[in-house]
Formats: sequence, structure tokens, C-alpha cells
Amino acid sequence: MTQERNQKSGSHSKTEEYTDMKREQHEGLQRVKFQMSRIRQKIAVISGKGGVGKSTVTVNLAMAFAMHGYADNVGILDADIHGPCVPKMLGLRGQRLQVSAIGALPVTGPLGIKVVSMDFLLPSDEAPVIWRGPLKMKAIQQFLSDIMWGELEFLFIDLPPGTGDEPLSIMQLIPDLDGVIIVTIPSEVSQVVVKKAVTFARQVGVPIIGIIENMSGFACPKCGTVTKIFKVGGGQRIASDMSIPFLGSIPIDPEICEDSDNGLPFIVEHADSPAAKAFTEIVERIEEYLKHKKGTEILLKSTSKEDS
Amino acid sequence: MTQERNQKSGSHSKTEEYTDMKREQHEGLQRVKFQMSRIRQKIAVISGKGGVGKSTVTVNLAMAFAMHGYADNVGILDADIHGPCVPKMLGLRGQRLQVSAIGALPVTGPLGIKVVSMDFLLPSDEAPVIWRGPLKMKAIQQFLSDIMWGELEFLFIDLPPGTGDEPLSIMQLIPDLDGVIIVTIPSEVSQVVVKKAVTFARQVGVPIIGIIENMSGFACPKCGTVTKIFKVGGGQRIASDMSIPFLGSIPIDPEICEDSDNGLPFIVEHADSPAAKAFTEIVERIEEYLKHKKGTEILLKSTSKEDS
Repeated sequence: MTQERNQKSGSHSKTEEYTDMKREQHEGLQRVKFQMSRIRQKIAVISGKGGVGKSTVTVNLAMAFAMHGYADNVGILDADIHGPCVPKMLGLRGQRLQVSAIGALPVTGPLGIKVVSMDFLLPSDEAPVIWRGPLKMKAIQQFLSDIMWGELEFLFIDLPPGTGDEPLSIMQLIPDLDGVIIVTIPSEVSQVVVKKAVTFARQVGVPIIGIIENMSGFACPKCGTVTKIFKVGGGQRIASDMSIPFLGSIPIDPEICEDSDNGLPFIVEHADSPAAKAFTEIVERIEEYLKHKKGTEILLKSTSKEDS
Repeated sequence: MTQERNQKSGSHSKTEEYTDMKREQHEGLQRVKFQMSRIRQKIAVISGKGGVGKSTVTVNLAMAFAMHGYADNVGILDADIHGPCVPKMLGLRGQRLQVSAIGALPVTGPLGIKVVSMDFLLPSDEAPVIWRGPLKMKAIQQFLSDIMWGELEFLFIDLPPGTGDEPLSIMQLIPDLDGVIIVTIPSEVSQVVVKKAVTFARQVGVPIIGIIENMSGFACPKCGTVTKIFKVGGGQRIASDMSIPFLGSIPIDPEICEDSDNGLPFIVEHADSPAAKAFTEIVERIEEYLKHKKGTEILLKSTSKEDS
């Protein structure tokens, strides 16, 4: 393929170098396109503001679909380069991407969920990734192009907060994204920032599946008194203000934090809790959306081609 | 070097354009240096993970210093380009940077606190800033170089989560930063990410003032039962694991969210609450650090020169 790259130390001219770089870029994008064509449904989870539970939603969503008949057919891309949390939440810390003859393989988590995260490439817990935008974009592209995701029914992408390099890269690299799910906490401070995420999704032309209100009220485990720690109803307000579907509210539950820390998705570990029940209803609404969306698509993507 | 490229499309040659660009860059950096030389103490608040209360800490810290004898002498730079929260928390939404003959002026908040935020430049609440790294770096540089901060005792910089473009830009543009304050919530998931922030600060050579544990336990307002929603003790653990000072824990308090939403710093509005008391102790430790630091500095920066 690149036989012409016959460099003898410095025999390579600037023009050739430029041509090589351009070809490499083009090949990278072609590989993204091919890999993504083998994944039927691709959904990003975004927020605008950090710390609202994006990763918790992503992980539990992936688990829910894996449990609903899609075991071994779900992937998660943890696109948070600086603060990857997905491996910790799925009990996969310390794992590494394995390299095979055809490329690097995702790490396999519970129910065969395939996970790719910067965390699998770092030497230690404490190592930060001090990268500017262009490097992050390159890493995300390689996560999509050079990881052998294989054929999957779902890919959930956990994006870092904000509307900068990482979300933009994902939207540009996956133009056929099925939609974004927006997560918020009810506070007004969060609402202000989350509205920007809604506008962002609209401006880049990605369908909005809906908004989830997380950390919505807290019931004292002793006396049952509900305290609206971060208020309640902010998600619903954004949904009606900006005409997007409201997917549901998840109450604050210390078990969610505990389970995340222990690497156990709470919808499995505490399936009977009000939080898990609320989450299950949200998942049903998302399934409904996806069913409807696929139903109205005239041409289904072919997933029959096999990579060699 | 490239004198042969003497194209006369716009009378300006490529070489001249390049020289102009370089001169402009150099002048910009000189202006940053001058502006920053007029601010005695510069402190950044970082976190690694989002949603841990960085902006709440920044705003209340600024208020605390303004109340402790530094009214009209404190500034806040909200360096979160995508999710600016500081104006909302200080009741300054909808304000605009005013342009004077010598440059743009910060917006003045309670107790004369001078605030600069991307929010003051946006057309509406809902407008996202869909920018990649280089543009964000440019904006941050201009916030430091082209805003007439004037002479100040303190500048608090609220950084977005992560260890990417914005924190790096600040560290490079303000090499004499007095230190960073790291904010975390107690959960293990947060700890993993916050440790990266500690390593980041060390790698870029900025002193770490200490770590604050936010959202540490919740006391039911009805029965008093304390629930460790996001666990407790994680901040202390990072401090001892990584040998950095522990500044204190702030309990969860619905008033903090309420006050932030209303644009009223909680240390003023609810001065007698356990959260405000915990915060006051933290402020004392920070004051102690700064006193000590300045005491050991042989040469104090001159702040006597006046801009014209």
C-alpha cells in the first residue's frame, strides 16, 4: 500500500511528506467510516455541565440494553480523555487494550459489553493526560478507527462536559449518530449550562432523544423526608422551554455512588430501588425512540460485510 | 527567510504578515505580564472532575476575602469557556463587559468583586461556545491581557474540569501563580480523577495550596440523620495518599444550591450554617498559607506602577 514511501533517511521531500500525511488522514477517516458502519445504533450522552451523572447514565444504559437481549452486542466509548470514569464504574480498572493481528481490541466487561477508554492506556491512576485539543481529537479518531469494535447493535458514547473538541470530534466523525441524550441536575446553575448543550446538538444537526434529570430529590433513609438538595423539576423545565422530550427523573440514592465506586451498575445491584425503577422507565422511552426512528428509516445500514 | 514570496495581492507580503502576527503575539504576552504584575496574589481552583463545586468554592472564597478587608480588591476570572457559572452565582447574569478608552472593564459584583466571564460576551443563555482548543486559549489570553483588571490584591481563577487547554493556558500565561486549590467530592470515582489534577499541578510546577472535600455527608433537616450520599473522607484520603494539605470538608446543604441559583454567596446568606462555618475554617487555612508564602518570598512584586 505504501511501497512508494521509499525514504532513505532524508530522501523524502516536503511534498511527499504532505501527500503521505493527507493519505494517512484519508485512510483514517475511511477506517472510522467502515468501523462505524458495522454498529447499528450509535448514541452519545452529553451534558454541558460536569458532575451531573453522565457516566452513570451511560454505564447503566449500556447494562440495560445488554440485559434486554443485547448481551455481547453493546459497546461503550468513554470519550472523556481527561477524566475517564467508565472503567471504574464497570469494575474494569487496571485492564489494558489487547493488541491482535488486526488491531487493538476493546476490553470486555459484564454481559460482554465492549469498553474503550483512555484509562486503559494510562500507566497509573494518578497519570493525567495533559493534552490540548488536536491531540484529543486524534485520540478519539483512533478510538473509532483503530479499535476492532466488530459488529455491534449499540454504541454508547460518554462525552466530557462542554461543547469543545471532544463532542465536536464525535459529531463530525459519526455523522449518522442516532441521537444524543442530555443529562442535567435540577439546579438553575446547571440548567443554564445544559441549555447550551441543547443548542449545540441542534447546531451540529444531531437528533435529541431527550433529557434526563439526575439527582432529583433525596429521601432520608431514616424518616423518609424528601429534601430537594439540588431542587427538582429543572430537567422538565428545560424540556418544555426548549421543546425536547423529557425522559424522566432519577432521585439521589447513596447506593448509586456506592455501586459506581464498586464497579457494579446500580440497575443490576439495586434493581428494586426507586432510582433503578425510574431508570428502567427512562430506558423504555429510549427504546421506544430508537424503534420509532429505525421504523421510519427507509434504508437500513448493511451490517453483513465482514472485516478480514 | 522567505523574501521571495513577494506577492502583491494585498500589498502585504506573507513575510510581513508573519512578522505582524509574531509581533502581535509578543505584545499580547507582554500585556498579560503587565496586567498580572498588578495583581498580588493569583490562585486557581481546579478539580479534574466536573460538578464537584469548583465555582461555588471560587465565588465564596472571593466573597470571604472581600469581606476580610479586601473589598474592591478581589477579582474572579471564570475560565470555563463552555459552562460559565460564576455570573449566575453572583447575580450578574445579563451583564456585559463595558469598553472604555483603555480597554474592556470587568463587571463589578457584590463588595466590588471584579468578574470576567465568557457569559458576559454571549448573546443569550442558550448560546453554546462551540470552540476547539486554540480559540479557547486565545480567549483566555485576551481575558488576561485586554481586560483592565487594575490593581488587585487577589485574583481567583475558576477553571473547567480536566487537564486540557484551559488549565494549561492559565499555567503557562501566569507562571507566578501562587497556587492551586483542588476541589473534590468524596466518591472513589471522583478521587481517581482528582489524583490526576494533583499530578497535573506538580508536573506544571504550580504549588498546591490544598484539597477541599465538598458534598461531604448530608444531615436530614427533619430528623438529623446523616447520610453519606457521596461517601465521606475521600478528600482526606487523597491528601494523605499524595502528601498535600487537607483544607477541610463542606457538608451537603440545599441552601448552597438555592443561594447559588439566586446569585447570593452562601457564606453571606447563611453564615451560621455548618457549611458556612466549615468554609470559614477553610478560608482561614488558605489565608495562613498565603501569609506564610509571602513571608518566605524575598522579593515582593512591585505593584506601584500605574498604567496610563
